[in-house]
Amino acid sequence: MDEFTKLTQEHVTHLQKLLGNEGVRVDEESLREYGHDETEDLVHMPEAVVFPSCVDEVSALLKYANENVIPVTAVGARTGLSGGALSTHGGIALSMEKFNAILEIDQRNFQATVEPGVINYVFHSACKEKGLFYPPDPSSWGSCTLGGNLAYNAGGPKAVKYGVTNQYVLNLEVVLANGDVIWTGANVLKNSTGYNLTQLMVGSEGTLGIITKIVFKLLPYPSEDLTLLVPFTSAEKACEAVSAIFHAGITPSGMEFMEKDAIDWTLKYVDDVSVPTGDHIRAHLLIELDGNDREALYTDAEKIAALVEDFDAVDVLIAESQAQRDALWKLRRRVGEAVKSHSIYKEEDTVVPRAELPKLLRGVKEIGEKYGFKSVCYGHAGDGNLHVNIVKGNMTDEAWEVELPKGISEIFKLVVSLGGTLSGEHGIGFVQKNYMDIVFNHANLAVQRAIKKALDPKGILNPGKIFPDQHL
Amino acid sequence: MDEFTKLTQEHVTHLQKLLGNEGVRVDEESLREYGHDETEDLVHMPEAVVFPSCVDEVSALLKYANENVIPVTAVGARTGLSGGALSTHGGIALSMEKFNAILEIDQRNFQATVEPGVINYVFHSACKEKGLFYPPDPSSWGSCTLGGNLAYNAGGPKAVKYGVTNQYVLNLEVVLANGDVIWTGANVLKNSTGYNLTQLMVGSEGTLGIITKIVFKLLPYPSEDLTLLVPFTSAEKACEAVSAIFHAGITPSGMEFMEKDAIDWTLKYVDDVSVPTGDHIRAHLLIELDGNDREALYTDAEKIAALVEDFDAVDVLIAESQAQRDALWKLRRRVGEAVKSHSIYKEEDTVVPRAELPKLLRGVKEIGEKYGFKSVCYGHAGDGNLHVNIVKGNMTDEAWEVELPKGISEIFKLVVSLGGTLSGEHGIGFVQKNYMDIVFNHANLAVQRAIKKALDPKGILNPGKIFPDQHL
Repeated sequence: MDEFTKLTQEHVTHLQKLLGNEGVRVDEESLREYGHDETEDLVHMPEAVVFPSCVDEVSALLKYANENVIPVTAVGARTGLSGGALSTHGGIALSMEKFNAILEIDQRNFQATVEPGVINYVFHSACKEKGLFYPPDPSSWGSCTLGGNLAYNAGGPKAVKYGVTNQYVLNLEVVLANGDVIWTGANVLKNSTGYNLTQLMVGSEGTLGIITKIVFKLLPYPSEDLTLLVPFTSAEKACEAVSAIFHAGITPSGMEFMEKDAIDWTLKYVDDVSVPTGDHIRAHLLIELDGNDREALYTDAEKIAALVEDFDAVDVLIAESQAQRDALWKLRRRVGEAVKSHSIYKEEDTVVPRAELPKLLRGVKEIGEKYGFKSVCYGHAGDGNLHVNIVKGNMTDEAWEVELPKGISEIFKLVVSLGGTLSGEHGIGFVQKNYMDIVFNHANLAVQRAIKKALDPKGILNPGKIFPDQHL
Repeated sequence: MDEFTKLTQEHVTHLQKLLGNEGVRVDEESLREYGHDETEDLVHMPEAVVFPSCVDEVSALLKYANENVIPVTAVGARTGLSGGALSTHGGIALSMEKFNAILEIDQRNFQATVEPGVINYVFHSACKEKGLFYPPDPSSWGSCTLGGNLAYNAGGPKAVKYGVTNQYVLNLEVVLANGDVIWTGANVLKNSTGYNLTQLMVGSEGTLGIITKIVFKLLPYPSEDLTLLVPFTSAEKACEAVSAIFHAGITPSGMEFMEKDAIDWTLKYVDDVSVPTGDHIRAHLLIELDGNDREALYTDAEKIAALVEDFDAVDVLIAESQAQRDALWKLRRRVGEAVKSHSIYKEEDTVVPRAELPKLLRGVKEIGEKYGFKSVCYGHAGDGNLHVNIVKGNMTDEAWEVELPKGISEIFKLVVSLGGTLSGEHGIGFVQKNYMDIVFNHANLAVQRAIKKALDPKGILNPGKIFPDQHL
């Protein structure tokens, strides 16, 4: 940490010159507010929070920070779950909240140009009004911003059919560590023109540049959807049913798995929905179908209903009204919060090839028994993306601090042995970085470090993230 | 060029030690054979051609070449159209043809693991046999290899619905310039675990590493398809019809545009197909629809037929038999060869947002008039990807060498002003590199160079490609 410069009053004065007085905050309350995201109860305060309002200001800011070797951590809506927006090395928290304009929705070309501070759901809704569809829909879509979604290559329920954020990004305006401004690509659907800097930036967690404009591709909005809830008497069987549905030739637009505890705990926070529960029900699948032909959706729903019988499904409930549908999805979107309210916890964002999900679930439980922790699992089963929530419950602090990381390592080793990896959609950030050598060999990490060094030689952009601590 | 080491007998002897005698060729005929691809009539001979048969041999070879600063240019099937496989700096041509195994088609997970020397169509067919679909289908799919497809992020007709090669690549085994071997990602559908080295490798034209294994994602094979041929009395109107079809909510699985000359010239080489021609017919759209419901395809075909009437379509022909369908697609796939046989030519792989296609076509013709060249245009209209074939005809050599490049620069400036870029699917390679500064600013090219330097400090991997010559 000591290679970085601590902010002095002189630095703050200069920042105020660059961004105006109202563009720089150093009061304790602001530093605390911008010193956390949604990751556990972690707080790492910056020394200043800045609010640039145009690309030239971001450029001037980075040029100055780079010359003075001051860390700069971009923050969006601070809804992240891997601690990626924490100012772990102090310095400047760069809030992109003034970059909140939808600059153009180009109906002719099914494209949109937006600033990174736009809230996901606001953008989704603006596109929908014009008959266009922006599919990525993280659980936090009502508050998270598109810039943050790009930084972590966010997913969401619809990824199972429509893919994650990076599939919709065509072109980016990016300010580099030295203040230079580039466009990474072009506004086209196919591109074989030089290195794919667009996809290098997406998922790089603010460590390679600051995104100031995004060009998205969009789809026509599907006119129909249908939501099903299927309770199962076995969580593993529910996971097996997921693969069977795809093998029947059906690609749902949502395929969510929730273990018993996940539903039970969440029902305490959501009161306008009734779902079958009871000791015999061990898991639910929440399934969405979409398209333009309502009859075809019902045909698929019937196929699913017939098929899940072989996997110990208790029933198949179809949401008949928009209100029922919304209530079920609200339930799913609240699971994370509910688990968080229940206990101190750690969330692992494991992802494996889809058909390996039953093995992953069984393995997580076995590792839990070995290390004495309880886990609540839920997530995007159609993508093989299982959120493993490890709850502290009555574990001792020592077990939590010392033993648990060994158990988490075992979970990740299992994930990798199944062809999977550490994070499907939350990113590595601060809390997963020391597990990176489980999935990548030394040569791979050396390449990633070399790219970081090439784009940000002084390491000012979001230091302390992604890369394992060197001494490990 | 003089920074590289020329091969001596001692080097060749060492290569033979590494790869066996039959793994190294230095005879004139081999050097000539591996000294060209399908780009114009260019020949740049290597000093040796090598044929490693496993990743360890590739690793040993690169380690040795790197230590001795010998250029290494990977070659696939040499069907490329941008000169990317030419040994412009001599050294070693690294043929991947012994890497021709389909290692696994994993039906449970809709994935496959293959070696890069497998021919595209062979892989496509092997997947199809198991009910699985690998969509990318470049015109040369009968001979091009998957490794080459990755190197240039190849497209093909089906990209309009299914996307290009990079959308199907989950994970890569890559040998780095220094001989280190890495896996870039994981075998998962979503991944937020470090930098996206997978997508950095795809499209990098063999300049960042040598791909030795590929993990693809696959789709269920659609059971039905339907091919339409639509002749138009105006090429620009045909281009306008393309956008109108998408706006009607139809996403065809093929949407190919062919100007009059492209069809007329190709008909000389394909004799088992009859298409309407004549002076009044200025262009054709070849349209494919696919899915699992034959009735739905006919419904969409009727919508298209009604819609194209407004754009001066002469007729709508539906291929009634598989033979007719195959003949039409064979015609389309042969256009490139036909143009090549007709005259000395240069092909530009322009790509713009789809709705800008009419403007691009008009602009290309205007620029042609200004500089005195004739162009034949065809390509993947649904993606905005227009192949502009400039034929030498009776242009003087001087006009061809000196004036034409200025005209091409104007075409690319037009492309960029429309939101497009230099290459949609052929890559930059050797022949487009000096146009790169039309689309990228200095800071962007500096980033690309820095990445190249970080991964290949001595610049041995496919030198002389992608980056503009420094003196320009």
